[in-house]
Amino acid sequence: MTQTRSEFEARLRQIGAERYHDLHPFHDMLHGGACNADQVRAWVINRYYYQHSIPMKDAAFMSRVEDPALRRQWRSRIEDHDGTDTNEGGIRRWLRLAEAVGLDPDYVASCRGVLPATRFAVDAYVRFVREKTLLEAVAASLTELFAPKIHANRIEGLLKNYDFADDSSLSYFKNRLKEAPKDVAFGLAWVLDNADTAEKQDAAAAALIFKTDVLWSQLDALSAAYVTPARIPPGAWQPDQGLLLQKAS
Amino acid sequence: MTQTRSEFEARLRQIGAERYHDLHPFHDMLHGGACNADQVRAWVINRYYYQHSIPMKDAAFMSRVEDPALRRQWRSRIEDHDGTDTNEGGIRRWLRLAEAVGLDPDYVASCRGVLPATRFAVDAYVRFVREKTLLEAVAASLTELFAPKIHANRIEGLLKNYDFADDSSLSYFKNRLKEAPKDVAFGLAWVLDNADTAEKQDAAAAALIFKTDVLWSQLDALSAAYVTPARIPPGAWQPDQGLLLQKAS
Repeated sequence: MTQTRSEFEARLRQIGAERYHDLHPFHDMLHGGACNADQVRAWVINRYYYQHSIPMKDAAFMSRVEDPALRRQWRSRIEDHDGTDTNEGGIRRWLRLAEAVGLDPDYVASCRGVLPATRFAVDAYVRFVREKTLLEAVAASLTELFAPKIHANRIEGLLKNYDFADDSSLSYFKNRLKEAPKDVAFGLAWVLDNADTAEKQDAAAAALIFKTDVLWSQLDALSAAYVTPARIPPGAWQPDQGLLLQKAS
Repeated sequence: MTQTRSEFEARLRQIGAERYHDLHPFHDMLHGGACNADQVRAWVINRYYYQHSIPMKDAAFMSRVEDPALRRQWRSRIEDHDGTDTNEGGIRRWLRLAEAVGLDPDYVASCRGVLPATRFAVDAYVRFVREKTLLEAVAASLTELFAPKIHANRIEGLLKNYDFADDSSLSYFKNRLKEAPKDVAFGLAWVLDNADTAEKQDAAAAALIFKTDVLWSQLDALSAAYVTPARIPPGAWQPDQGLLLQKAS
């Protein structure tokens, strides 16, 4: 049976309450100061792959949108990440974080050393947006509903617990606190407007669950590789390869 | 054998000299004042489908580009068509042309009435960019090398021969005269830089030929449907459905 708008919104928010990656133990470690420097670095390296793929995901979405007004609305997401003449963009901000934790930003930008499981999860998200309905693609983006809380916790936790944390190195998160709310307000309204049958509501909810899986599995992979008992898979970043400012070859 | 940079550029330019749609008889009719009002309208309706798909093509390209700098460079093409806060964009300009020739812009924007052959050709271009190599995708865009001449001829011919033509209705073409050169300078240099083997040069040349086919076949379809002896296929725009400001239902 089709849910009312508010019932359906509550259902989407409940998915976040049960499955968003703020619940993952790795985030407790990270925000609580329990990560060592290499674990922070591994997180920065792997999360970069997600960052660098998000504009590709948003372009894949736009490539399927016939309506110029919807494309225009969506384009600001790419601008937020890739940057504009007046905004360095989230990807450059993430590379400043990489430098602050002692990594060569060129090495991080090369995406060498990223865990295969990170690639699989992130690439699955890009492919999902390329192949599923527009409704499912927008619904998958609604994990941003839950992002402001984790970003605020992260800023507070990192500032308190790590020497590298300052206004410059954390500028990515501070900017996301400003950017994400406008995106998600649009995306949530669009999903609530367009999921007008029970079937579409189920599809949108499943898409949001899929996206929480994409985020969660990245932290599982990170933990398995870099948290004791750690087993780093072949080819992934090795802390003892040299910690500071690894050079991309 | 791999051609030198200048040999290869000459080969690409020769493709335009032999195959670009400025050679199509429909353009002689259009620019020479030999089109009746309905033929101009049919051209505006069908060409809109191409216009409205170009940002989707460019987003499809960006969705496959890993390099944020290349994505940033490419994004201006989408901005030129979809518009920004300070630029209404090519699609809105095209709809002003639609209105100037007596069509309801909402009808044109609905893409109802577009010839199936137009859709097939344009959709083939979007799919090409989604599926082929980045080199082939950029090479296909190089028909813009040949566009300034046709735009200049078009502005001159339309102004001379048609009452609807003025600065406002032709602003699309005037803006393209400014925008296309920066795009094509980048695209040409990128193709010349990246087509560094004979195999890649052949692929790039084939991509440019493919694109000239996409453009040419749209004018063939338009001529077959709307130029004597005209046969309008089922479902396509019928002039006698009412000429002026058809309402989209």
